[in-house]
Amino acid sequence: MRDPLLLTPGPLTTSLATKTAMLHDWGSWDKDFNHLTAQVRQKLVELIDGQGTHTCVPLQGSGTFAVEAAIGTLMPRGGKLLCLVNGAYGKRIAQLTEVMGRRVTVKDFGESKAVDAEAVAVCLAQDDEITHVAVVYCETSTGILNPMEAISAAVAAAGKKLIIDAMSAFGALSISTAKLTFDAVIASSNKCLEGVPGMGFVLANIQSLEQAKGNSHSLSLDLHDQWQYMERTGQWRYTPPTHVLAALASALHQYDQEGGQAARLARYTENCQQLISGINGLGLRSFLAPEIQAPIIVTVHAPVHPNWQFNEFYQLTKDEGVVLYPGKLTDAETFRVGCIGAIGKAEIAMAIDAMARAFKQMGIETAAL
Amino acid sequence: MRDPLLLTPGPLTTSLATKTAMLHDWGSWDKDFNHLTAQVRQKLVELIDGQGTHTCVPLQGSGTFAVEAAIGTLMPRGGKLLCLVNGAYGKRIAQLTEVMGRRVTVKDFGESKAVDAEAVAVCLAQDDEITHVAVVYCETSTGILNPMEAISAAVAAAGKKLIIDAMSAFGALSISTAKLTFDAVIASSNKCLEGVPGMGFVLANIQSLEQAKGNSHSLSLDLHDQWQYMERTGQWRYTPPTHVLAALASALHQYDQEGGQAARLARYTENCQQLISGINGLGLRSFLAPEIQAPIIVTVHAPVHPNWQFNEFYQLTKDEGVVLYPGKLTDAETFRVGCIGAIGKAEIAMAIDAMARAFKQMGIETAAL
Ligand SMILES: Cc1ncc(COP(=O)(O)O)c(C=O)c1O
Ligand SMILES: Cc1ncc(COP(=O)(O)O)c(C=O)c1O
Repeated sequence: MRDPLLLTPGPLTTSLATKTAMLHDWGSWDKDFNHLTAQVRQKLVELIDGQGTHTCVPLQGSGTFAVEAAIGTLMPRGGKLLCLVNGAYGKRIAQLTEVMGRRVTVKDFGESKAVDAEAVAVCLAQDDEITHVAVVYCETSTGILNPMEAISAAVAAAGKKLIIDAMSAFGALSISTAKLTFDAVIASSNKCLEGVPGMGFVLANIQSLEQAKGNSHSLSLDLHDQWQYMERTGQWRYTPPTHVLAALASALHQYDQEGGQAARLARYTENCQQLISGINGLGLRSFLAPEIQAPIIVTVHAPVHPNWQFNEFYQLTKDEGVVLYPGKLTDAETFRVGCIGAIGKAEIAMAIDAMARAFKQMGIETAAL
Repeated sequence: MRDPLLLTPGPLTTSLATKTAMLHDWGSWDKDFNHLTAQVRQKLVELIDGQGTHTCVPLQGSGTFAVEAAIGTLMPRGGKLLCLVNGAYGKRIAQLTEVMGRRVTVKDFGESKAVDAEAVAVCLAQDDEITHVAVVYCETSTGILNPMEAISAAVAAAGKKLIIDAMSAFGALSISTAKLTFDAVIASSNKCLEGVPGMGFVLANIQSLEQAKGNSHSLSLDLHDQWQYMERTGQWRYTPPTHVLAALASALHQYDQEGGQAARLARYTENCQQLISGINGLGLRSFLAPEIQAPIIVTVHAPVHPNWQFNEFYQLTKDEGVVLYPGKLTDAETFRVGCIGAIGKAEIAMAIDAMARAFKQMGIETAAL
């Protein structure tokens, strides 16, 4: 009867207030809507302490569109990207850079280790053609937390520019210009900010953006043009996802009411701990070492059992109102459980119970069953 | 108290049923959502009688993103586009083609005339490097209806491929493979289908799409990749705008209930006629000759009066709950009034009354005041 809980990396379970914010139609040319846009942009800049140095450029489309727009716009055509990879989303940055015809070199750390800032410094020392470095803050394909401060320091020390894909981190993990130096941080409406999907945004260094005119390989993804137009008119260039923006504005209001980033991080951290101990109680192990586990999404080793089948497990837990997520690892058989969204203790407990019953029904005896 | 009426080319006034369809969260990996996607895709193909020849590829982002994706994917890198222009949206196609670094030649018909199919035939005869032709069905910057059958025939006779931007026409004006030959028709969720903004879609010829691998200048806008992924998995490549798709599915259901394209066209045609005669009653003239006026949006000559100011007029009508739209012409001082959205007789009457009172308040005596 109720919507299933989405224990996924997004789209995720949003509050009713966020969804009911979509029950209005907005004129995209109208000043009420422009005001909403301005409010959201300002708030997002404040979240990174970026007033005066950074600007928020929202972009229609999914998060990947915003990542591609950031790289295509901020990195000159003659630039060269060092792409730090420890999972699928890092790989995707390298792929989209290649498709747009720019130079990219990949440093791959495997799927179970954090990016090593010292290794980054070595890469940068070895190749002085590199102009930009891209890294994923929380690599959602496993849930790895990358050490942003050390990486940022290494990149800044080498005089290169950093582009951070913070899609699944933004709003929960701390990102501040006081501690990190970056050209751009990219995220979307539908992860830790708990909005609905349909737009991404780039928090870009204003000076870098000013110099970025004409870099883009794509009109739709030209962040400089989008920014200039928005500054001039208060409007989005091309039709904005009005209802999605209204939902995000509401979600940001609720974010403040909850207590901002610290409160959100605390809730997700509790969700994550409860989830891992519940999973351990079922005799299962999480994939990552605790010190590199971000409180965003947990990768779980599937039971080693002849009856194990993700699809059946998925359906059984879904029948109990819990939507889990498949694994994304090339080697290990895993599944994933998200800690994010408008969920807390009760929902995590419900998820653990649903998993326990699913294993039982599948005839899989884990340690505790 | 009520939301203002949006008499604009979109985002526009949607029904409450369409908006309440957004009160659910969907897992983007889940089969319920895949089913919704499949349903919408199939329905959109049926609307153009494209079963077996065309496929629907939805794309995150605004309509422009889908136009750019269609051209970038379907036209080979060595291709050359003839872009038929009679307004801002035709110009935009030429611009985005140039930005992606492909060859484009423009045939401009001015802002007040329909595209002339004979002139198109002449252009094609003169330049045999042209491989593709792009045209806008209803040029929303004025409301001009372009003669699609004649243009399609001229393009087919020359052995070239046609790409139709049907953004503001789709769902209201007829588009059928029985009468038109085209490689792609592009539209979005938030115009005559009366959904909310956040996605576009391309109805592409399957054979052309099959040959389009590797053409795209952009990963996010690679329609071939999006299509292949969707065919293989049932899912969108990259996070879909779940709530926007759910709203579109509901809007399409309501579309059928209303009586499909014929009924939608009839309602908009009545809206348009009522609007034009109301405007004439106020002593104002519409910009276009009746034979090229599409029943989508009406461009109106602003009163020639020292007190005329669009911004004041806009605010006064908005205070009465009616949102109008600015003109987009380079020469003439105009404003625009949309005929589309979940509106009918009562709403058009309300708009006319609001305009009449606004003129009065501004001290502008039009013929009938
Ligand atoms: C770290 C990261 N980067 C990029 C993306 C891509 O975002 P989207 O699916 O909205 O395109 C995701 C989505 O999960 C992500 O977690
Ligand atoms: C004919 C036409 N083409 C393209 C567009 C661009 O669509 P969007 O604003 O969704 O990018 C529009 C929007 O009004 C249009 O009317």
